[in-house]
Amino acid sequence: MTRVALLSRSADLDFLRPLLLAQDASLDIATWPDPRCLQAEVAVCWQTPPGLYAQMPHLRLVHSIAAGVDNVVAGQDLRGLPVCRVVDPLLAQGMLQYVLWGVLHFHRHFDRALANQRRAHWQRHAQTPASGCRVGLMGLGELGGLVAQRLAAMGYAVGGWSRTPRSLAGVQTFSGAEGRQPFLARTDVLVCLLPLTDATRGILGAECFAALPAGAALVHCGRGEHLVPDDLLAALDSGHLRGAVLDVFETEPLPAEHALWRAPGVVVTPHMASMAGFDVVVRQIADNVARLRAGRPLQHQVDSTQGY
Amino acid sequence: MTRVALLSRSADLDFLRPLLLAQDASLDIATWPDPRCLQAEVAVCWQTPPGLYAQMPHLRLVHSIAAGVDNVVAGQDLRGLPVCRVVDPLLAQGMLQYVLWGVLHFHRHFDRALANQRRAHWQRHAQTPASGCRVGLMGLGELGGLVAQRLAAMGYAVGGWSRTPRSLAGVQTFSGAEGRQPFLARTDVLVCLLPLTDATRGILGAECFAALPAGAALVHCGRGEHLVPDDLLAALDSGHLRGAVLDVFETEPLPAEHALWRAPGVVVTPHMASMAGFDVVVRQIADNVARLRAGRPLQHQVDSTQGY
Repeated sequence: MTRVALLSRSADLDFLRPLLLAQDASLDIATWPDPRCLQAEVAVCWQTPPGLYAQMPHLRLVHSIAAGVDNVVAGQDLRGLPVCRVVDPLLAQGMLQYVLWGVLHFHRHFDRALANQRRAHWQRHAQTPASGCRVGLMGLGELGGLVAQRLAAMGYAVGGWSRTPRSLAGVQTFSGAEGRQPFLARTDVLVCLLPLTDATRGILGAECFAALPAGAALVHCGRGEHLVPDDLLAALDSGHLRGAVLDVFETEPLPAEHALWRAPGVVVTPHMASMAGFDVVVRQIADNVARLRAGRPLQHQVDSTQGY
Repeated sequence: MTRVALLSRSADLDFLRPLLLAQDASLDIATWPDPRCLQAEVAVCWQTPPGLYAQMPHLRLVHSIAAGVDNVVAGQDLRGLPVCRVVDPLLAQGMLQYVLWGVLHFHRHFDRALANQRRAHWQRHAQTPASGCRVGLMGLGELGGLVAQRLAAMGYAVGGWSRTPRSLAGVQTFSGAEGRQPFLARTDVLVCLLPLTDATRGILGAECFAALPAGAALVHCGRGEHLVPDDLLAALDSGHLRGAVLDVFETEPLPAEHALWRAPGVVVTPHMASMAGFDVVVRQIADNVARLRAGRPLQHQVDSTQGY
């Protein structure tokens, strides 16, 4: 028997209980704010309530229910606990689809067609081959690396930036602080797939936008905290940026009064780029619980000092 | 020396004259309505004035400047003249990009996100894998066949319909009148890439839409004359169809007062899915003129009895 706690300050994770029990009937599962959670050995989390792990003396594993772990480690005392995430091949497929729609949206002038349609205005723009559209991926992890290579295979001129040097076939890669400026200067459509860390918080701000060439566009499916909304609105307003497709926001749902909903050239989508299927989520969590019990290596463990 | 006539009732093709002369300085080029056109051996055409070939006794070749030949053969006395079209690899790339945006638009709920954005409404829809989205290609020619296979490679459940039986790896194919109903019944996103012939005129009408499952969507990049706009508007209005991405219209530009501009769920684009580059157009025309002169086989000749 393993004691599992379902922890979230924003969502009711109790729906996972029968799904997890179907995988492993021996689990003893409590859902926050049930105080039995504090006795758990495994925390299954999405936006963990602040400081909770510090009150869980028996905790041996923190498991995110998603690909990102930022909101399950932020503001917590991890004391060396292993942190795992969910890796779903469909997650990558979904992310690729979303990014592809966003890149095509700008490359093939769908943004202009939609704006023109509002006033029944017919205007053709010159068609340029994919090779003439410079896409820049920020973040070359599991998702970013795959998206970069698939876009390159479709003919796009793909560049990629990451914290530490990476090498990807067909992708012009840049890294570190000194690589950021040249990466941005060659990017027509910037795609953010970064993890959220202290080093990436607010990275999509005035300095970044100014470094992009005039007329560049943004496709953002990282985390809401990467983006400084006022800086984006200013860059759009000045005409320096052409538009943005945004899937993530610091507060979700995005409040109805937020200016991003109505900014010309901005497409707001409801954090829909990619979700792991719940069947995959519960299977991977149950598998890691079994591994923990047997003392075998965990799967999809993240380096919690880097946050991804 | 070969006498060439640039013929169009809707566009001024005179801009092609210096481009063609740069390919072959020996050409003698006239632009309609210059009466010298009637002495030409080669007609280079886009929407040829009605009945013109009958007045051209020396005509030996009709060359479209585009992939389609419908508007250069309709209402003309062809008397067995060879008809050629332009085949540009970028044309296929462009068409694939357009169709991909359209398919993703519905599969990944971007249509719903855009509609929700207008009222600052945040609503997530379940993510389904590409394999759960049944795309149906009408027309399996050079473009349709390629698009079908590339969509299948991206994981979509792809079906295809053509006049005569075709076989395509990874694509469930249907053909002829008896294949149309079962093809439509298994199609969530219908993509029209048919050539325009007497048999396909008005094919996107009430009967076709009724045969699609409820909630199906249309991506149309064939010809305007394939579509019966009132039937589409009725199918959208009743809720049977979910939406449509339309690139071609019987009258282009689409008149500002046309209901399609404002129909909910309809995206109107300005016949932009795919254009051959003019460099490719003039190179292929000059090459065919040289072949004609040398008595060598022509390239990209169409079967003018079928119209494609």
